[in-house]
Amino acid sequence: MDFGYDSTTIEYSDRLLAFMDEFVHPAEATFAEQQAARPGEWGPPPVVADLQARARERGLWNLFLPGDRGAGLSNLQYAPLAEITGRSPHLAPIALNCAAPDTGNMEVLAQFGTPEQQAMWLEPLLDSRIRSAFAMTEPDVASSDATNIETAIVRDGDDYVINGRKWYISGAMDPRCAILIVMGKTDPTAPRHQQQSQILVPRDTPGVHIRRGMHVLGYDDADHGGHAEIDFIDVRVPATNLIGTEGSGFAIAQARLGPGRIHHCMRLIGMAERAIELMCRRVTARVAFGRPLADQGVIGEWIADSRVEVELLRLLVLKTAWLMDTVGNQGAHTEIQAIKIATPRTVCGIIDRAVQAHGAAGLSQDTPLAALWAQARTIRLADGPDEVHRRSLARRELKRHQ
Amino acid sequence: MDFGYDSTTIEYSDRLLAFMDEFVHPAEATFAEQQAARPGEWGPPPVVADLQARARERGLWNLFLPGDRGAGLSNLQYAPLAEITGRSPHLAPIALNCAAPDTGNMEVLAQFGTPEQQAMWLEPLLDSRIRSAFAMTEPDVASSDATNIETAIVRDGDDYVINGRKWYISGAMDPRCAILIVMGKTDPTAPRHQQQSQILVPRDTPGVHIRRGMHVLGYDDADHGGHAEIDFIDVRVPATNLIGTEGSGFAIAQARLGPGRIHHCMRLIGMAERAIELMCRRVTARVAFGRPLADQGVIGEWIADSRVEVELLRLLVLKTAWLMDTVGNQGAHTEIQAIKIATPRTVCGIIDRAVQAHGAAGLSQDTPLAALWAQARTIRLADGPDEVHRRSLARRELKRHQ
Amino acid sequence: MDFGYDSTTIEYSDRLLAFMDEFVHPAEATFAEQQAARPGEWGPPPVVADLQARARERGLWNLFLPGDRGAGLSNLQYAPLAEITGRSPHLAPIALNCAAPDTGNMEVLAQFGTPEQQAMWLEPLLDSRIRSAFAMTEPDVASSDATNIETAIVRDGDDYVINGRKWYISGAMDPRCAILIVMGKTDPTAPRHQQQSQILVPRDTPGVHIRRGMHVLGYDDADHGGHAEIDFIDVRVPATNLIGTEGSGFAIAQARLGPGRIHHCMRLIGMAERAIELMCRRVTARVAFGRPLADQGVIGEWIADSRVEVELLRLLVLKTAWLMDTVGNQGAHTEIQAIKIATPRTVCGIIDRAVQAHGAAGLSQDTPLAALWAQARTIRLADGPDEVHRRSLARRELKRHQ
Amino acid sequence: MDFGYDSTTIEYSDRLLAFMDEFVHPAEATFAEQQAARPGEWGPPPVVADLQARARERGLWNLFLPGDRGAGLSNLQYAPLAEITGRSPHLAPIALNCAAPDTGNMEVLAQFGTPEQQAMWLEPLLDSRIRSAFAMTEPDVASSDATNIETAIVRDGDDYVINGRKWYISGAMDPRCAILIVMGKTDPTAPRHQQQSQILVPRDTPGVHIRRGMHVLGYDDADHGGHAEIDFIDVRVPATNLIGTEGSGFAIAQARLGPGRIHHCMRLIGMAERAIELMCRRVTARVAFGRPLADQGVIGEWIADSRVEVELLRLLVLKTAWLMDTVGNQGAHTEIQAIKIATPRTVCGIIDRAVQAHGAAGLSQDTPLAALWAQARTIRLADGPDEVHRRSLARRELKRHQ
Repeated sequence: MDFGYDSTTIEYSDRLLAFMDEFVHPAEATFAEQQAARPGEWGPPPVVADLQARARERGLWNLFLPGDRGAGLSNLQYAPLAEITGRSPHLAPIALNCAAPDTGNMEVLAQFGTPEQQAMWLEPLLDSRIRSAFAMTEPDVASSDATNIETAIVRDGDDYVINGRKWYISGAMDPRCAILIVMGKTDPTAPRHQQQSQILVPRDTPGVHIRRGMHVLGYDDADHGGHAEIDFIDVRVPATNLIGTEGSGFAIAQARLGPGRIHHCMRLIGMAERAIELMCRRVTARVAFGRPLADQGVIGEWIADSRVEVELLRLLVLKTAWLMDTVGNQGAHTEIQAIKIATPRTVCGIIDRAVQAHGAAGLSQDTPLAALWAQARTIRLADGPDEVHRRSLARRELKRHQ
Repeated sequence: MDFGYDSTTIEYSDRLLAFMDEFVHPAEATFAEQQAARPGEWGPPPVVADLQARARERGLWNLFLPGDRGAGLSNLQYAPLAEITGRSPHLAPIALNCAAPDTGNMEVLAQFGTPEQQAMWLEPLLDSRIRSAFAMTEPDVASSDATNIETAIVRDGDDYVINGRKWYISGAMDPRCAILIVMGKTDPTAPRHQQQSQILVPRDTPGVHIRRGMHVLGYDDADHGGHAEIDFIDVRVPATNLIGTEGSGFAIAQARLGPGRIHHCMRLIGMAERAIELMCRRVTARVAFGRPLADQGVIGEWIADSRVEVELLRLLVLKTAWLMDTVGNQGAHTEIQAIKIATPRTVCGIIDRAVQAHGAAGLSQDTPLAALWAQARTIRLADGPDEVHRRSLARRELKRHQ
Repeated sequence: MDFGYDSTTIEYSDRLLAFMDEFVHPAEATFAEQQAARPGEWGPPPVVADLQARARERGLWNLFLPGDRGAGLSNLQYAPLAEITGRSPHLAPIALNCAAPDTGNMEVLAQFGTPEQQAMWLEPLLDSRIRSAFAMTEPDVASSDATNIETAIVRDGDDYVINGRKWYISGAMDPRCAILIVMGKTDPTAPRHQQQSQILVPRDTPGVHIRRGMHVLGYDDADHGGHAEIDFIDVRVPATNLIGTEGSGFAIAQARLGPGRIHHCMRLIGMAERAIELMCRRVTARVAFGRPLADQGVIGEWIADSRVEVELLRLLVLKTAWLMDTVGNQGAHTEIQAIKIATPRTVCGIIDRAVQAHGAAGLSQDTPLAALWAQARTIRLADGPDEVHRRSLARRELKRHQ
Repeated sequence: MDFGYDSTTIEYSDRLLAFMDEFVHPAEATFAEQQAARPGEWGPPPVVADLQARARERGLWNLFLPGDRGAGLSNLQYAPLAEITGRSPHLAPIALNCAAPDTGNMEVLAQFGTPEQQAMWLEPLLDSRIRSAFAMTEPDVASSDATNIETAIVRDGDDYVINGRKWYISGAMDPRCAILIVMGKTDPTAPRHQQQSQILVPRDTPGVHIRRGMHVLGYDDADHGGHAEIDFIDVRVPATNLIGTEGSGFAIAQARLGPGRIHHCMRLIGMAERAIELMCRRVTARVAFGRPLADQGVIGEWIADSRVEVELLRLLVLKTAWLMDTVGNQGAHTEIQAIKIATPRTVCGIIDRAVQAHGAAGLSQDTPLAALWAQARTIRLADGPDEVHRRSLARRELKRHQ
């Protein structure tokens, strides 16, 4: 048992921290100004392209991707880097071409795509020439139960024809988003986990109607392409656009889930670290009733509990990454659920304390805290509400004790 | 001891509930559409004026105001009506001319204003021909400690000259907002609670610079006039604009606080009732894993706990109103703090459960829940963060046991 | 609506508070000493009889009982008195002959007993010449679902014959406990709520085997007669011992539930007040790191939250009592469940904070806190665990919104 | 980074698990019977000696002690074994001669004792021929601040004379407890952390008055020697009984703290595992309202949250052990506090859920749960209440962000 990072991780961490200090944090104000000055536009403001150029120069590009096409890092090696990017979650992940949902889509294409699919979509994504989206969630059914999904993908000669409605399709409002991976049912009569397939649908295919951007607590998240509601009406794509085989959609979705969970949770931990730092500075600087807030009431308990919670969460996420690297996603099933259950809600609590310590400023556009909170809150619902995972984990625990 | 509403309350409640069903709830969709269609505009969309006309016809106007100018209700009689308006907090309070901060400003003018001040500002406010704002909070100091306030109100001949910066001045972005009540210091050397004064400043006075609308999470609350950041630079108003006497600002602020607290807390309870209703409907209608959500896991506990919490909160707020009516604000001091401590955070928790039960829809613009949550969260910070009130109440409790 | 106590309540409260100060609190140390000096004995130590004599003299006797036989108070009038007794829960209720389970048993006998049953058992109970127990809970089934109860009460000629095992039969270890009211099934084939009957079983009837005293955490509660495990083996009593008619057991159990809930909850509130008082005194007197605990960290928040919680709980319990007096137990169903859900767990939390503020002393025999906590914790399980009530209340709430 | 146990740990774990299954768990009922049959006796019942003999035979003896005298395991290697013993905390630690406070006393003697002290006291302790106690906590001061300690240790010729009162001295009621390590002040005028010394006091020294056994929530913990209140009145011991030098008492106390914290926290985790196991079995076996509890309401969430919490805690405790092994106690300061803050309160919560799932049985003497809860609750206060550690950790965190 060894709780120290390996030398590759440390070396990347050092370079990434330097990049954050030199480029990312100083760009945050510019980002906010540019964003405020372009209402109604979807996609990242210009400063992001500058940061991407810098990141490439420094070899901080596609770090998330294992194998030759990316940095070749293991889940355990990448996880601490994801945490660092979480300290500036609107800027750092995209600056490094490590932002969701492109990361998951690239992983799927790298692992399951045909050479033609890879040439067509993976290469430009790796190069950040285009962006992508993953169209799974539907408004009309509880999508946490994948068998509920109703979008139809029907074979018709050499094509598939797609009909259905999706929403909260992150990134899809961005005109640079060129390709959608759509999850739907090719065979509603097949066994429960073999009904679904995933298929590539260029965003400009006739019948793809981008209806509107969904909100998250008042935010439209325009800078990372929003969250689209999309109608698919008789959308026709060639059969070669299918990813893998018919019926493999559920398995492919599971495969992307593990690494995505690690990325999300580690970024959340980075967000929590940012919130703690802001809280500590605020309560030291702010005086009320003649003393700094830091010396008053419950503030010390908030800081201590937040620090303890972060230390607890980080280790479990790292262990989960280690299990995925060593025994695979199946062997890490309990832990992959555990970090989903524990991380977002705990981090919501930490950021909420930091908000409260800031007074009105904590809810305003002048600190990152309100946006961080909204993002963390969303992840309590993304890939299924916490409760679905709690109940599934409980069933497994009950079986262990029979 | 009697826990039943009196006949006046019941009669008004019945009429108000009918008004909600007939006009307010049906107008909610129109309100949302109109609001979405006018980005960048501050103030209520057209449907509000229609509702106001209806409310006047029905005698549901200025219900909050005791005495001849309003409906003449006691705090205890008005409180259940405020709860009902909380079920549609963006529409109902303003429809009845019972929306903050106009209510508090009208109370102050009715109680402390000169006949000239009342003719000039109170009459048009009672008639909803103009709107108003209360400029107290400052970005640079912990405003929960009123002695921190730094805005200067300096006598200069027959005028006062005002310099300072305020923020989160709700309603002040609305061009119909004609008058600001500004809190500042006329004598920084006076005893701690006699340094402040309140003064009337027409919004179009030279030197009043409305800088920007502050956000609350991602909301700008444009429909009720936003939350302005305002610079006051050598703003000159006649000395007759002072409310009350020099040094009475703190006392006037305290006087408005009690009723305002009741209104806020009762509306929060109405918001909680709305959230519970939406949650119950959702979990009955929504099916996952073959059963309605209502039959699964922790949902029942969420509903029960929410119901119990609402029943607990309502009684304490009503008792506080009763105390204010019978022994006055001073005698209700502990209770006025207690409801501030308990209500917003508990209601945040209730709405959060309702959000979680809705999945992504709960955070979206398609249900009122996300906006309700943001509003409830704000009130944990408005008139001082919860923690200030908890510590003050604790000091009083400690003294009781010496 | 009126939140003030009536003059009868105030007059009784004043007298009872004087009695507490003059007799009960001073007797607490004596009680503890006498109790420590008689290990293995079940039932109250001698000081209790002295207090009973004083209470009778002062007309503070059988206050719980409505009608001519008791003080004739309504639930709403008695509730604040029950709170006062909760400040010394091992001494005050029994001193006033207002201790469970005798109270419930006397209510049942007064309401449903025949004149013969009343002469035989109610009279001596009202006079505290004997004590009683209520034998409902069984170890082998989830007794929160009364239909699970397995004890058989079988008619045989002019007798009934009883077989079954009960546990946690409070008071039954006391040799002065002369009579048991036993709940069992007379007709397992009847409709669900008409299978049960209640029957009077003298404790010395052959076949009644008192096996052992059950513990609650480390307490055996010897001073109030412990919690017995009892085997009933072919226990034969005359048919005239049946209370009411065959099949009425469930309805009789429900009837005793409402007042019992009020008593328990008000006593819990008195226990919470005692804990708050002890906590306030301790943190004022105790110095660590150069300052009283009261000035440090989270202590103020504990005190404030405890005060707020008590104010919230008390009003809901009183409203429940008022509903029972005005619309009856059926109309108060939701509230009767709500106070069971909210009161014990909240009071556990309050006492736990007081324990923590006392350090090791809080867990010791030198303050009442540890015993108060154990008692409050028990009530989260008595008459069914909280969760049963939360789910039942949730079902009713869900129906309201269909 | 590597989250797998090393081969030594795995080998010892396997042997210890076998020992638990073969001897310890089967002895639990015997232990309870023997204990119930000897009221008023202090110290372990006879079955413990049998288990100790078995443990020695199997080489499972003194596992906690690093170096030649013990098993030579690192903190990281011993920690998982301490967890296993926590599953039966009244039997397993003492069976292996790994029970507090003997463990800490043996560590102190091994590390700081003179050869004479070691021969006199360490050897018989290693052999379990005697037991020992550590007399630090005082009733009259907040002992969490060691500078408050008032017991005087005054040099007088070749002796030291000790005067003071201690309480909650675990183990000291046992007549087999031969030696006390007493903490007191040799120089109240020295710098704050050099006032204290530790000294060996044979329990039968004149002037050592064992007053009474303190309780913990109704438990006297007689089986492990209780928790004594002790008066030291002019107790005279030779100067050679001092451990280390005058003024080194605080440093010695700190040295024992780190390993002790690991042991306590890992045993708590074992206790939590036991509670989860009991809860899972109970809710599967118990039926109410026609379905097993496991299928109802919030039970699944309880199980899931408990599992997640245990996984989180274990990793942080193990990391702390690893830090102590690699960078020493100083480098692990934050983590040593973090596990004290997080572990007892979280484990209290887990056991409390298991109690609730058991109904009345959960509070009774028929399951280990009530005693486990009391033990876990105590550790929220042992070596200082949580809040002291939270505030200290907060101060360090605040400094990091200056």
